[in-house]
Amino acid sequence: MKPLRIGLAGLGTVGVGVIKLLRAHAEELSARGGRPVEVVAVSARSRDRDRGISLDGLRWHDDPVSLAQDTEIDVAVELIGGSEGPARLMVEAALGRGIPVVTANKALVALHGSALARLAADNNTTLLFEAAVAGGIPAIKLVREGLAAERLDRVGGILNGTCNYILTEMRTSGRDFSDVLAEAQEKGYAEAEPSTDVDGWDAAHKLAILAGIAFNPIRFESLPVEGIRNVTAADLRFATELGYRIKLLGLARQHEGKALEAWVRPCMVPVVAPIAGVEGVFNAVTTSGPFSGPITISGRGAGEGPTASAVVADLIDLARGASLPVWGVGAVSDAVECGSLADVESAFYIRLDVADRSGTMADLTSVLRDHDVSVHFVSQHEAASGRAYVALVTHGVAESAVREAAKGLAALPAVNGEPLVLKIEDSLR
Amino acid sequence: MKPLRIGLAGLGTVGVGVIKLLRAHAEELSARGGRPVEVVAVSARSRDRDRGISLDGLRWHDDPVSLAQDTEIDVAVELIGGSEGPARLMVEAALGRGIPVVTANKALVALHGSALARLAADNNTTLLFEAAVAGGIPAIKLVREGLAAERLDRVGGILNGTCNYILTEMRTSGRDFSDVLAEAQEKGYAEAEPSTDVDGWDAAHKLAILAGIAFNPIRFESLPVEGIRNVTAADLRFATELGYRIKLLGLARQHEGKALEAWVRPCMVPVVAPIAGVEGVFNAVTTSGPFSGPITISGRGAGEGPTASAVVADLIDLARGASLPVWGVGAVSDAVECGSLADVESAFYIRLDVADRSGTMADLTSVLRDHDVSVHFVSQHEAASGRAYVALVTHGVAESAVREAAKGLAALPAVNGEPLVLKIEDSLR
Repeated sequence: MKPLRIGLAGLGTVGVGVIKLLRAHAEELSARGGRPVEVVAVSARSRDRDRGISLDGLRWHDDPVSLAQDTEIDVAVELIGGSEGPARLMVEAALGRGIPVVTANKALVALHGSALARLAADNNTTLLFEAAVAGGIPAIKLVREGLAAERLDRVGGILNGTCNYILTEMRTSGRDFSDVLAEAQEKGYAEAEPSTDVDGWDAAHKLAILAGIAFNPIRFESLPVEGIRNVTAADLRFATELGYRIKLLGLARQHEGKALEAWVRPCMVPVVAPIAGVEGVFNAVTTSGPFSGPITISGRGAGEGPTASAVVADLIDLARGASLPVWGVGAVSDAVECGSLADVESAFYIRLDVADRSGTMADLTSVLRDHDVSVHFVSQHEAASGRAYVALVTHGVAESAVREAAKGLAALPAVNGEPLVLKIEDSLR
Repeated sequence: MKPLRIGLAGLGTVGVGVIKLLRAHAEELSARGGRPVEVVAVSARSRDRDRGISLDGLRWHDDPVSLAQDTEIDVAVELIGGSEGPARLMVEAALGRGIPVVTANKALVALHGSALARLAADNNTTLLFEAAVAGGIPAIKLVREGLAAERLDRVGGILNGTCNYILTEMRTSGRDFSDVLAEAQEKGYAEAEPSTDVDGWDAAHKLAILAGIAFNPIRFESLPVEGIRNVTAADLRFATELGYRIKLLGLARQHEGKALEAWVRPCMVPVVAPIAGVEGVFNAVTTSGPFSGPITISGRGAGEGPTASAVVADLIDLARGASLPVWGVGAVSDAVECGSLADVESAFYIRLDVADRSGTMADLTSVLRDHDVSVHFVSQHEAASGRAYVALVTHGVAESAVREAAKGLAALPAVNGEPLVLKIEDSLR
């Protein structure tokens, strides 16, 4: 049978991994897809670099847009990365001429998914991006197809392996953020410029995509994002004491008749929650709905092998002739704003660095009382001489109230630096 | 657009759940499937029973085979159950006339899947059974499509919620099997006739289906199956002491160039394994492959809502026009025999009920030495007066050797009853 001809742009580790996988499993893939899947053309910055694989017999395009316009390809695979520039131009060129695109580019889909979905629909083709969320874990397929019958009320999870690795190491070794980050950078688990990971942006891109599939595409700039830089070893000790793990979570919730609640932030998760046991570089995606109940899937969220596996799974779907709408619904939807978190009620953890002297606790509780924030647990650990860490756990309270209270606490003379406020996510039990 | 017309046989809780779900989410389902999905005809044993839903306007067939022959349906849904009789006849009738079938019937697919796949292929149609494995968890879709790029080396998991509930309760309450089973029966978590669940048959059906998708359909009668009746509260205490949980696992492994290793049996699983934290009635499916790494998905494995969600997800795939081969590969394969476990090496746990007198331990270790079974851990707990439970953990050894050694141990005068031998599954870490 006629092969599915692939044009692949971007020959970094994932691009090379895709070619290796297609060659290693050629026979099975042909059986599963109903026809061979073959890379016939490629594009990358340097033609001469040794990538450990042979590119003999493949057409070379210096420009990825010219690859997308190659009339002898059936599918364009975009593994360049970046939400703008060549990646975006190439995807637009391919969709614009009715060629389906498979991409691992989370930033591109998170920022421009809504417009690209429209372009795909207008040209009667599709855009697939299983590899953009949680690497080898088929999270997109889980939500878009496996739970196609469901009206989900929640989707999200642990979406960044670097942050999860750092938080796991901080907990098990008792070391602080900067120390563990430096080690992760040495080991290659974190980038030299770590902001995309540790400030939550990578997780935010993935959450935006999951929310787009489960609910509605969102305006990325309206998504509240907080990273893990302010989490300390003391917080991880308090968490253990309280029966929680600290995880960088991205979650989106649809409450009946309300704006979508969505955010990325470090949270306290009960130790007994399935997601709490997902440690190190692993990712996890969790969903919940009235019929299906809670579902959690975990696995390797990044790397050559898992990401290549996800890209090729999308190619098999195309080889099988699957007709898959970009966001899981036939209709194209405009992106929506995320709702304000001010009124969202939750229990919170507040950690303070205070002068360890009499009267401090009374001052703290008085500020909280003034903001109508009721506390049901207080714990204190000694820090450096004359100072202490205090952890407070609130009853359910609106986020705006706890933020105001935290400002009031920060203004107390006994309090050093900024209080850390973490949401307590008891719903994931 | 023309609706997808469903003929549904079997109006038990799942059948009623499917109709409820289709009505509750009609609008989303129509958008996601590209056309409305409507039940137009039904069949069940009693026409008059009150099922809490209206059947007005639906054609009634007394005989499910007549439903399958209804020329005004596009898909037949089989929710009757049982591997023979009306369920099988109905599925064969529908596939025989080229109508796709969606079923939740694990016994039917496990025992006759290979023949039914051939019948479907011969008639250019398909058989979908997402609901047959792990209820609302899209395990079939995960393996068949999400990991379509992968050459898996392992698939399986915790496939029976009743057993997992009983083992969880035994561990947390310290009570014995019969006591917890009786309570589970009272609560409706276990059937009055519990053999299908507690003797491992239900898990075996599901494992056979997973193995069929990941590797090759298997001859069901060649699958080694052991249930949980012989696991005692003492075993769960020893497991905790050793850093393990006891889980009824079904696993299939494909070793290069060897017969498929597949079995259902209670195992020791390290507490740190993702699957160890899957407790109560929850199910979990785990896979592993060279590119994708280990993946674990958990959720509710049974019940009206989750099962209905899986059935309707299959219907949405059909509405979208997906062309899905029954076993994930285009070719139809004959069922294969599972390999013998005699030579499979593993660490094992052996638990004995012994007379608590001097010399017993020497007798035990001497029997083990005679069978070349090397032990690296021994623990003893007092049982009733004058008796004790002894737990032995072996180094890696062939299963045949440990079975022979267990026979030798059982023959010792100091040993009461049968030793319990559990495989230690350290690979799931």
